[in-house]
Amino acid sequence: MRFDRLFAQRTGNMAASAIREILKVASQPGMISLAGGVPAPESFPLEILRELTARVIDQYPAAAFQYGPTEGFPPLREAIASRLCQAGIDVDGEGVLITSGSQGVLDGLGKVLISEGDEIAVEAPTYLGALQAFNPYCPRYVKLGSDDEGLIPASLERALKEHRLKFVYVVPNFQNPTGKTIPLERRRQIAALIREHDALLVEDDPYSSLRYEGESLPTLKSMAPDHVAYVGSLSKVLAPGLRLGYVAAPEPLAKWLVIAKQGIDLHTSSFNQALAAEYLTGGYLDRHLPKIVEIYKPKLQAMLQALARHFPSECCWSRPEGGMFVWVEGPKGLNMEDVYRRTVARKTAFVPGRFFFVENGEGGETMRLNFTMADEEAIDRAVRIIAEEIEAGMRTCC
Amino acid sequence: MRFDRLFAQRTGNMAASAIREILKVASQPGMISLAGGVPAPESFPLEILRELTARVIDQYPAAAFQYGPTEGFPPLREAIASRLCQAGIDVDGEGVLITSGSQGVLDGLGKVLISEGDEIAVEAPTYLGALQAFNPYCPRYVKLGSDDEGLIPASLERALKEHRLKFVYVVPNFQNPTGKTIPLERRRQIAALIREHDALLVEDDPYSSLRYEGESLPTLKSMAPDHVAYVGSLSKVLAPGLRLGYVAAPEPLAKWLVIAKQGIDLHTSSFNQALAAEYLTGGYLDRHLPKIVEIYKPKLQAMLQALARHFPSECCWSRPEGGMFVWVEGPKGLNMEDVYRRTVARKTAFVPGRFFFVENGEGGETMRLNFTMADEEAIDRAVRIIAEEIEAGMRTCC
Repeated sequence: MRFDRLFAQRTGNMAASAIREILKVASQPGMISLAGGVPAPESFPLEILRELTARVIDQYPAAAFQYGPTEGFPPLREAIASRLCQAGIDVDGEGVLITSGSQGVLDGLGKVLISEGDEIAVEAPTYLGALQAFNPYCPRYVKLGSDDEGLIPASLERALKEHRLKFVYVVPNFQNPTGKTIPLERRRQIAALIREHDALLVEDDPYSSLRYEGESLPTLKSMAPDHVAYVGSLSKVLAPGLRLGYVAAPEPLAKWLVIAKQGIDLHTSSFNQALAAEYLTGGYLDRHLPKIVEIYKPKLQAMLQALARHFPSECCWSRPEGGMFVWVEGPKGLNMEDVYRRTVARKTAFVPGRFFFVENGEGGETMRLNFTMADEEAIDRAVRIIAEEIEAGMRTCC
Repeated sequence: MRFDRLFAQRTGNMAASAIREILKVASQPGMISLAGGVPAPESFPLEILRELTARVIDQYPAAAFQYGPTEGFPPLREAIASRLCQAGIDVDGEGVLITSGSQGVLDGLGKVLISEGDEIAVEAPTYLGALQAFNPYCPRYVKLGSDDEGLIPASLERALKEHRLKFVYVVPNFQNPTGKTIPLERRRQIAALIREHDALLVEDDPYSSLRYEGESLPTLKSMAPDHVAYVGSLSKVLAPGLRLGYVAAPEPLAKWLVIAKQGIDLHTSSFNQALAAEYLTGGYLDRHLPKIVEIYKPKLQAMLQALARHFPSECCWSRPEGGMFVWVEGPKGLNMEDVYRRTVARKTAFVPGRFFFVENGEGGETMRLNFTMADEEAIDRAVRIIAEEIEAGMRTCC
C-alpha cells in the first residue's frame, strides 16, 4: 500500500541516529571501539542481581508483576528521594517520577512543553539523545556557548534575554559528549540567572556518581529547586538494560509528565523497579559503586596518558574527573570524518564530533572518545592510531 | 515559578484518565471491584519466573543488562514471529518490533502518523488507553458503529468513503470495553474494505489467547497483511508488570516506529525481553496458558449466570467466550454514573460506560464489568447489588 501520504508532518523532523551507523561499524569483530557510550558489562552487579531477583519474587509476588502506578513503584520513589536528599535536593518520594530510562523523561518533557516552533536552549555540543527526544515536537534550538568549564553563564543570560525559552537543557557533570563539568561558581551564576528570569532548566545528570577523583559539586536543582527538573538514571550505576530513569520536577510540571506517561507506556516495568528499590535500600549500590569506579578510573587515566603521549600539540582535549568521555578539538580545517574513515580502516572507531551540534557545519574538527569499553592497552593503541591519522589529516588541510 | 505559559498546546488535548479515579475508589479495602481491567495475580507464573530469571542471568549476563537494539531482543522477536506464523500471520523476527507494553505501540503510531486535525476511525465504544495514546497528537475521531457482533462493516465503508482516514483502530477479539468479538464473515468484509480503499488498519489484539470456549478466528492481519499493523501484548499471558508489547507492521511504518522509539525510550527492558524469550521458546507459555484459562473460565460463567439471575429484563449484555469484560446496556435514560455512586456506597465498583466513547453524551446508560479479579461468590453478590441499584435507578428515570 502507499504509505507516504500517511505519515505525520513531524516525521520530517525525525531522523535515525547517525551515530547508530557508526556504532554498527564500531561493533564489528576486531574493532577497538572508543565510539560507544555504554557501560562495561563487567560493571554490572550480576551476583547482586541474582540475589535480588529471587528476593523480589518472594517479597512482591503480586506488585512486581502487576500493573502499577504511573508515577512509579513507591519503595523505589522513596529510595531515590532519600539519595537525592543526601545530595542536597529537598524532595520526598511523592516528588520523584520513575521513567523508562532518562530518555523517557526527555520524551515526556518534549511532549508536555514543546509546541511547534517553540524555542529551547541547549549547549553546543549537547547530548544527542536529548535532541532525538525533542526533535519530533519540532522546537527551534537556541545555542548556548561553552568553553573548558562548560556552559558560559553570559551566553545563557543573552539567550534568556533575547528569546522566550520553554526551557534550558544542560548536562552539568561529565557532559556527553565533552566530559566537561561546570564548576561551582558558574553553577551559582546559572542558578541565579534561571531564578531571576523565572525560567525552567532541565538538569540531566546521568554521570555524577561516576566520579573517579575530586569532589562532588552541588546540583543546580539544589540552588534553584522551583526552577529545575532534575533528571537521573540508574543505567550507569545498576544496568542500562533495565531502563530505569527518574525526574524530580516542580509539581505543576510533574503532574503533566504523569498524564503524558499514561499514554506513552502506562508505567515503567514494576519488576525492574522493585529490583532497583532493593538495590538502593539494601545498601548494594553503596557497596557496588566503588567497584564501578575501580573499573573506570584506570581506563580514564590510560586515555589521558595516551592522549598526552601520542596526540599532536595542535589538538586540545578535556580532562574529566569522571564520566565516560573525553572530547578532542583538532586544529580548524581538520576533517574529523575523514580521520574516522581512515582509523576505521585500521580497526579503530570513535565518533566524529559534528553529530552533537544542532547547527550544520559546526564541530567538524572535533571528536568524542569513550574510555569505558576498551582495556588500557587497547586504549593506548587506539589513541596512537587516531593520532597518526589526525597528523595525516593535518598534512592535507592545515 | 509561573508554569502556565510553558505548556505545549497539545496538553489542552490531554487529560488524566477518568477511570483512574474510579480505580482508586475501587481499590479501597472491603470493596468488591468489577471495575479494573487487570489480570488476577494468581495467573502470574511465579515459579516459572523464578526459574527463568536465574537462567537468563546465567545465559545472557551481558545482553540482558546492557543497552540493546531499539527493535528488540532478537530471540524474543523470533519467538513472537514464530507464534504469529502459527496464527496465520506471515512474519519473521525482523518483522516484529518489541515495545514497552502495547501502549508503547499506540503512542508510537500516534507519533509517526497523526498530525493535528488528522482523522482516525475508532469503534464506539473503544479502548480508552488508545484514546490516551492518540489524544496528545490532536486527531479528530471518526466514529464507527458497532452492534452485538462488533464493528459494522457498512459503517467502516462509509467512513472510508467520506473521510481521509490516517488509520482505523479496531480491537476484534473480546474487545475492551464490550467483550465483543467480530465474527469471521465480518472480518472478511472488513479486510476487503481496507484493501480496496488502500487504508491502514491497526488491529489491537491483547486478549485472543484468553479464549475459554469456542474456536479462535483468523486475524485481520492474515487477511490483509500489507494493510494491517498487528499489535500484541504479553501482559495477559505472562505479566503486565514486565511491560512487553509488540507490533508486526508493514515495513515502511515499522521503520518509522523504530526511529520514533529511539527518542521515546531507546529500547524496552532487555532483561524482561530475555525472560519473555525464554518463556516462549522453552514451552512455558504453552504449559501455563491452560492454567490461566482455568482461572478465568469459571469467573466468566459466574458473571453470566449472575447477570441472568439478578439483572432486570430491560438490560442486555454481551456474552463473550473469553477476555476480561462483559458490557451492559441499560434502558435509555438510565444514568449509570448515578448507579455507580450508589453501588460504591455499598462497597461495589464497576466502570460507567460513557468514558469509552469519544463523543460526550454517549453511553450514559452503559457499564463495563470485569470478571478477572473477584472470586465467583463475590461476583454474584456484586452483580446482585448492581442489579438492585439499576432497578432503583430505573424507577426514577424510565
